[in-house]
Amino acid sequence: MHTAIKEIKSHRYGDGDAIVVKGWVRTRRDSKSGVSFINVYDGSCFEPLQVVAPDSLNNYGTEVLKLTTGCSLIVSGRLVESHGKQQALELRAEQITVVGWVEDPESYPMSPKRHSIEYLREHAHLRPRTNVIGSVARIRNAISQAIHRFFSEQGFLWVASPIITASDCEGAGEMFRVSTLDLQQLPLDEKGEVDFDQDFFGKEAFLTVSGQLNAEAYACALSKVYTFGPTFRAENSNTSRHLAEFWMVEPEVAFSDLDESAALAESLLKAICQAVLSERRDDLQFLSGFVDADLIGRLETLVGSDFIHINYSDAVAILEQSGREFEFPVFWGADLSSEHERYLTEQHFKAPVVVKNYPKDIKSFYMKLNDDGKTVAAMDVLAPGIGEIIGGSQREHRLDILDARIQELGMKLEDYDWYRQLRRYGTVPHAGFGLGLERMVAYVTGLGNVRDTIPFPRTPRNASF
Amino acid sequence: MHTAIKEIKSHRYGDGDAIVVKGWVRTRRDSKSGVSFINVYDGSCFEPLQVVAPDSLNNYGTEVLKLTTGCSLIVSGRLVESHGKQQALELRAEQITVVGWVEDPESYPMSPKRHSIEYLREHAHLRPRTNVIGSVARIRNAISQAIHRFFSEQGFLWVASPIITASDCEGAGEMFRVSTLDLQQLPLDEKGEVDFDQDFFGKEAFLTVSGQLNAEAYACALSKVYTFGPTFRAENSNTSRHLAEFWMVEPEVAFSDLDESAALAESLLKAICQAVLSERRDDLQFLSGFVDADLIGRLETLVGSDFIHINYSDAVAILEQSGREFEFPVFWGADLSSEHERYLTEQHFKAPVVVKNYPKDIKSFYMKLNDDGKTVAAMDVLAPGIGEIIGGSQREHRLDILDARIQELGMKLEDYDWYRQLRRYGTVPHAGFGLGLERMVAYVTGLGNVRDTIPFPRTPRNASF
Repeated sequence: MHTAIKEIKSHRYGDGDAIVVKGWVRTRRDSKSGVSFINVYDGSCFEPLQVVAPDSLNNYGTEVLKLTTGCSLIVSGRLVESHGKQQALELRAEQITVVGWVEDPESYPMSPKRHSIEYLREHAHLRPRTNVIGSVARIRNAISQAIHRFFSEQGFLWVASPIITASDCEGAGEMFRVSTLDLQQLPLDEKGEVDFDQDFFGKEAFLTVSGQLNAEAYACALSKVYTFGPTFRAENSNTSRHLAEFWMVEPEVAFSDLDESAALAESLLKAICQAVLSERRDDLQFLSGFVDADLIGRLETLVGSDFIHINYSDAVAILEQSGREFEFPVFWGADLSSEHERYLTEQHFKAPVVVKNYPKDIKSFYMKLNDDGKTVAAMDVLAPGIGEIIGGSQREHRLDILDARIQELGMKLEDYDWYRQLRRYGTVPHAGFGLGLERMVAYVTGLGNVRDTIPFPRTPRNASF
Repeated sequence: MHTAIKEIKSHRYGDGDAIVVKGWVRTRRDSKSGVSFINVYDGSCFEPLQVVAPDSLNNYGTEVLKLTTGCSLIVSGRLVESHGKQQALELRAEQITVVGWVEDPESYPMSPKRHSIEYLREHAHLRPRTNVIGSVARIRNAISQAIHRFFSEQGFLWVASPIITASDCEGAGEMFRVSTLDLQQLPLDEKGEVDFDQDFFGKEAFLTVSGQLNAEAYACALSKVYTFGPTFRAENSNTSRHLAEFWMVEPEVAFSDLDESAALAESLLKAICQAVLSERRDDLQFLSGFVDADLIGRLETLVGSDFIHINYSDAVAILEQSGREFEFPVFWGADLSSEHERYLTEQHFKAPVVVKNYPKDIKSFYMKLNDDGKTVAAMDVLAPGIGEIIGGSQREHRLDILDARIQELGMKLEDYDWYRQLRRYGTVPHAGFGLGLERMVAYVTGLGNVRDTIPFPRTPRNASF
């Protein structure tokens, strides 16, 4: 058995304990007095373990002095209290076994010099070996576990919404087609059109853009559910906020309304930030120096602040009266763009903001129509430093009003038959929202680009690895 | 605020407490003495809450007496100790608000009569309202949370492996193509072949069949990782064990070998079964009566048993000497089929069995070649009642041997360039396995068909909802 480095860092071991560590070389430094200091990491925490290798080791000259960044090792020895400031314990090696060398260290893509974040992206299979992407991986895991814990403790059931969907009614223009047809020999029907009856599912199929409608079916039976899975958008957007494949968390609650959903969103965001603050302080401290000095303060502020609630109409009035010149014009009926959202949350309120009750014409058919007949019970949650992080709504649970909205938008009632049945049989007010995991990780880590928050990002012209 | 029914069932409330419950009618029974008994469920646990509605309620005649299965209600009242045996507390209603009626109760697809499991499958959007699929949903959630907890407590990081992959080297024949090309107007290149350079990713892309290779990249940097996400198989298999879309759990551990992987698999399976036994006893008891009387005993046996470890060669000898006539012949070099696996685990050993070290010719290229040159360090975990539930291996971490295997199988080295780099730079022995979530849920619930263990199953000619 060997010991994870985080166990040593968390003071479960003391001076003189015999242990075995397995990991990779981060750096090696040789002193003139015939001893080498090797920083070894194993991914279990940010800080590497300092291994002290005396020249009395039988492979000191033949191997230890040849170790380079990335070599894999097994080190056995005893812990000793370090004289340095940062480290409480270092490992005095009694045996070092080199498990794997780095072939041609000069050309090793993860050599110890500082690489650009764009360069790391091109080496997505090796970048978890770096400090920054290692930190992102641990924080992403902490966030994901916190999300499952949060919902589980509140009695939510995790529900797998389908990834492949044959309903082309969610906006097929931005969807990826899923097919097993042979493109070199497409079967055609008598009209000369592609015969999808011969495709795997017997009809056109796509990758889902949201699990919400399916989650509603489960919420209308089991009360509190959430999805947590990949969703897809075939948008040709090369921005720092867009991925073709991204993970989404979508809670859905029966007998619930917009304000309860806003309160749930606030607790969720705070629970996530609190979890990272208490579990991954090491990685946050590193990232503070690397990308954003105010990172920890920003998360602590979010945890401690009361979210501001404001109606869309009042938000528009604030923006109109701001005296700012925005790139996109502000008027009642226009969707808020990123610059507007950031003004509200960063300049005006200096706090997270929930904007509620948007004009129905800029929102989706399934959102509950308010009594004014003009707005729907939709919300966006905006946070300083990132803008919109959550979007949600109360759903229209009244069949007659839902049907009118579907027809008003030129959609076909029969395409929504199963969804409408949820309103036909024991309907209940219900509400939910969606949180994009990668944007959340980008926010918490301070990294500006979602491509660095998912291990193997998929974007236009890129599906490598 | 309202109270989840499970809170009442778990004795957090007592006689005389005033509460509000929100849920749906399971059944209604009227007594001659002018009182109605309404069983209400909200999905939070198996047992419904008995609501006692006296005829003194102002809507007793106009509404309460018209309630049918599936109607949604808000009931406020006080808890009283029940005279019945099964229920400790029932709710004496002081007010019943009908939130949603069931339109035309005679035609309600989830009417209280017993429906076939096949009929329920055709109503996947409503079936979570039934006892059986409600139980499955809660057990599936308990299993999923137990999996995340298990790995998290052991220091594993959850890693998102990509869903869309452009590597066509994992067996493209059974993969779904992902594309945004217009099938009616396919772009062709100068050779007259489909020009995938114009597709979204600039080349052919597919849905992943496994996250393993990607997980290996992360394990070779962070030591202990697991994936938990959807995977896809475009196999035209209409069996009770196959889905086109299913969820897979794939741990991958650096500095690890086959025996450690087998031990990890054993602990994982036991942790899952133990979690369901302690958290979902109510649903297991119901399912015992519904599908499999020995359900609970089977899970308890698994938790209490030591898994048998046996080499493939010895397993073949046992099968050859069994005196059984198998449909598929048994000989050294043949893959074990379901009947062989079930004989070993159910008849011969009467315990879970780990079969190890299979002939290399029936296993994948990435598995570690054993010193005999004939077998690889692969394992299958077999459990009584289901057969193979886990498959895994130690991975080939030696570049020269991996390269020889790739070439031996007629594959191209350059297609595996990034994967081979993991062996070129600080390679380590590593191992992992895959657990299919739906098969696990089928095993734990006793349901014979994986289509009933995922909310919206995708199979040949079916991607509804």
